[in-house]
Amino acid sequence: MKLRRSERMVVISNYLINNPYKITSLSTFSEKYESAKSSISEDIAIIKKAFEESAIGKIDTITGANGGVIFTPTISEKEARLITEELSTSLSNSDRILPGGYIYLSDLLSTPEILRNIGRIIADAFKEEKIDVVMTVATKGVPLANAVANVLNVPFVIVRRDLKITEGSTVSVNYASGSSDRIEKMFLSKRSLKPNSKVLIVDDFLKGGGTISGMISLLKEFESTLVGVAVFADNNQQKHYQFDYKSLLHISKIDIDNQIIDVELGNLFNN
Amino acid sequence: MKLRRSERMVVISNYLINNPYKITSLSTFSEKYESAKSSISEDIAIIKKAFEESAIGKIDTITGANGGVIFTPTISEKEARLITEELSTSLSNSDRILPGGYIYLSDLLSTPEILRNIGRIIADAFKEEKIDVVMTVATKGVPLANAVANVLNVPFVIVRRDLKITEGSTVSVNYASGSSDRIEKMFLSKRSLKPNSKVLIVDDFLKGGGTISGMISLLKEFESTLVGVAVFADNNQQKHYQFDYKSLLHISKIDIDNQIIDVELGNLFNN
Repeated sequence: MKLRRSERMVVISNYLINNPYKITSLSTFSEKYESAKSSISEDIAIIKKAFEESAIGKIDTITGANGGVIFTPTISEKEARLITEELSTSLSNSDRILPGGYIYLSDLLSTPEILRNIGRIIADAFKEEKIDVVMTVATKGVPLANAVANVLNVPFVIVRRDLKITEGSTVSVNYASGSSDRIEKMFLSKRSLKPNSKVLIVDDFLKGGGTISGMISLLKEFESTLVGVAVFADNNQQKHYQFDYKSLLHISKIDIDNQIIDVELGNLFNN
Repeated sequence: MKLRRSERMVVISNYLINNPYKITSLSTFSEKYESAKSSISEDIAIIKKAFEESAIGKIDTITGANGGVIFTPTISEKEARLITEELSTSLSNSDRILPGGYIYLSDLLSTPEILRNIGRIIADAFKEEKIDVVMTVATKGVPLANAVANVLNVPFVIVRRDLKITEGSTVSVNYASGSSDRIEKMFLSKRSLKPNSKVLIVDDFLKGGGTISGMISLLKEFESTLVGVAVFADNNQQKHYQFDYKSLLHISKIDIDNQIIDVELGNLFNN
């Protein structure tokens, strides 16, 4: 398909946005758009400048036989803070308090625009790490893991709290369910995670830490390693966990009697 | 931010790709990029041409006080078929047969590139409809619903098969669980779906139809209407369901003894 430069830039931008963290050779573009590699190279220089100036992401050139260009999405600290402050305001709404001191989050974690932004912020916080897989636990963690995996362009795996026939053979571990002080089981399909995977754990809410510790024990069973833990919100009451984590939001107080939730930016924003 | 035309086109393309089905006024771009509306209008004409020629999507101009431009992602029938044929090959792999005649799908439904493409194909099949919300059932439907909702830029809601404290008040209905011929319950959080919503139901697998019929009864409880049903794969044995559906893939045979799965393109491709 032969295109004018301006059109070519639009379609190459679209390709890069939809294929983050993937090396694509200039020849691929050159063949697809019937243009000289030198022209493609100039197109990409312009796209690179536009992406960087607008904090959409960075474009790196990898030299060598398997070289090409690679797009890494980024987000400016200013935009990340602005987005998270809006989420904080939304989360502080007293309507969200459920009996028992739980907080209703499902609406936020099922809106594509919000998920896309959360995905960008978390992926950006781990962009220096090599990540093969994002892991989460069913059900509320799934859209979050999906959003982060989308930006990192890697698969995600879903740990389950129940046994499903459609998962085939599974490996299980015990974990302490924080909210109930009970020991429960979690399961991961044997074929879903290759040995030696580098894994980022993502979940919606961190309180007791039992669920995340459980996923970390599963990683050992799969001979895989933990790269990091990211949560949408933590309600950490100065507890010391066995793992480090990054949170978008920190819930410092849930006052059921007076229907007050205090929310601050999470430790992801501590420099 | 003042940009050159070529850079402006890159960032406007990026904006439109990330904000499908949303009307944005030319003034928004004109203010953001400090350019005359006539220049923005020319930029968009070029982007529109490039998007259409590459089957990325269409850009429409809505006139009037609340007017602007709106981007609708599309996919060419050729690309949709190519993608689905690859999925069909992958699905036909006999390694996927699990004891009991179930099929392992989790790896496909947790790879961002695949999900993005499935989302584009399903959204495209319903692009003439007005859809407010995508509905699915936990857990395997979630990434699919998320992918479709991403393209349509609408929220999704997750029906659950168990009661979770963190969902608040719920409405439940009974449904016939096809695989076990048992009557079970499904639950939807009361605040997750507004009355009079137009809903697209998305699920991974259609066999007995009980789960989807259950979701349709839930819609009635929420005074909402069904726009359509889309599934990744159906294993319809000439059964007559109470609803119409579109499937990407049709599994015509699962032969456990000889370890054979026969997969064809689904009825979404019947014109």
